[in-house]
Parts: sequence; structure tokens; C-alpha cells
Amino acid sequence: MIPVIRLKDKLARIDQHWTPGIVAAINDYQVKLVKIEGEFTWHKHADTDELFLVLHGNMVIRLRDGEAILEKGDLCVVPRGVEHKPVAERECHVLLLEPADTVNTGDAPGELTVDKPNWL
Amino acid sequence: MIPVIRLKDKLARIDQHWTPGIVAAINDYQVKLVKIEGEFTWHKHADTDELFLVLHGNMVIRLRDGEAILEKGDLCVVPRGVEHKPVAERECHVLLLEPADTVNTGDAPGELTVDKPNWL
Repeated sequence: MIPVIRLKDKLARIDQHWTPGIVAAINDYQVKLVKIEGEFTWHKHADTDELFLVLHGNMVIRLRDGEAILEKGDLCVVPRGVEHKPVAERECHVLLLEPADTVNTGDAPGELTVDKPNWL
Repeated sequence: MIPVIRLKDKLARIDQHWTPGIVAAINDYQVKLVKIEGEFTWHKHADTDELFLVLHGNMVIRLRDGEAILEKGDLCVVPRGVEHKPVAERECHVLLLEPADTVNTGDAPGELTVDKPNWL
């Protein structure tokens, strides 16, 4: 049998902003959920694209040359090497997809870095 | 700038069941959307896991040893090599994630095969 992952239930287990938790693995990729609020750090991922899918609320992905405004049901791929800064005025729930070894703060480690996300 | 992909708008462009369309690429993976209704063919993907995320409606993934019942907001990963048969009693909208070269019918080609999905 194959487990069914209810995103709503997994989100209910998250009690910290900017702390992604893993919900599924597909080959060497992982799906993570994260609750965000406020401003994240500017960073980039040199070796991988990164997918954002908004499940609840709104967020902005600031870029050096503009911004992407995402509402619930919107998806966005930040290409490898592109500096970005996720921001959410109010709490926003996001599904991330990226290679399993991707660190949330990319090339800009700091207090928001989560090296080894937990499974939810 | 980075395009924002509104899943609702992309889904509105799909007018055939079981015909996935591509909405995003992440490295060598693709996100596809598909509207399903009725019964798909039994098949497996020898070389890759496959992710299903239900966006609208309900579906069942029949397995040789049971079934996974998915509602809106539920996610499921069918591991490589596992035979499965997607089924939906009423129209259901699904987001798929898999390597870009994955063919929908896996090892069981037939009239439902879509070798080269279009971008939506």
C-alpha cells in the first residue's frame, strides 16, 4: 500500500515560520511544506531550480529585477543561480519542490538555515 | 522576471481527459496538469517514482494490493515499478510531478499514450 499524504494535516504540524518539513520523496527530490511570514534572506541556489506552490495566503518572491506575486494556487520556478527573497506580509503556506539536499538559505547561511529538515 | 503560473488558468485550457499538459520545469523534472475521468490503464514506470496531487475532486489509485483514495489537497507518490491504475468516478484535476521524459502509460502503451505532452 501507498500512504496518502493530506497536506492540511501536515501543515497543522508546523509551528514555526521558515522551517520547512518534508512530506514526500520522488526519486532524489523532496516535497516540503513551509509556513512563512515576514522577510526571508536574499539567497540563491547555484545548482538547482526551486519550485514554489502557494497553498494558502499570498507571497512575494523578490528578485533583483522585479518581483513575482503569488496567490493561492499559483506556482513559480526560481531558476538556479537567480537571487531571490521570499516575503509574506501575513502567514502564507507554501509547497516547495527541490532536490533532497537543497538547503533553504542556499548561498547565504544564517540563523534561518535549516540544514536537515524533519519529516512531518 | 519569472513567470507566475496560475494553475486555475492552465486547467481551463485542458479540454481532454487523460491528456497531461506541462506547466513548469524544475531541472529535468516537469510539473504537469491533467483532467481525469473514468479508468486509466494499468501500468508502471520502471525507472521513476511519480507524484500525484489532487487539485479538484477525488480519485483512486488502484494498486495490485489495495488502493489509495485521494481527495482535494491529498498527495501520493507511486514508487517506481509499482503497477497502478488511476480512476476517477467524476472529473478530477491532478498535478503530476515526474522526470521530463516520463510517458503517461509507462510500460503499457496504447490509445491513451501521450508521448510528447504539450505546454499549456
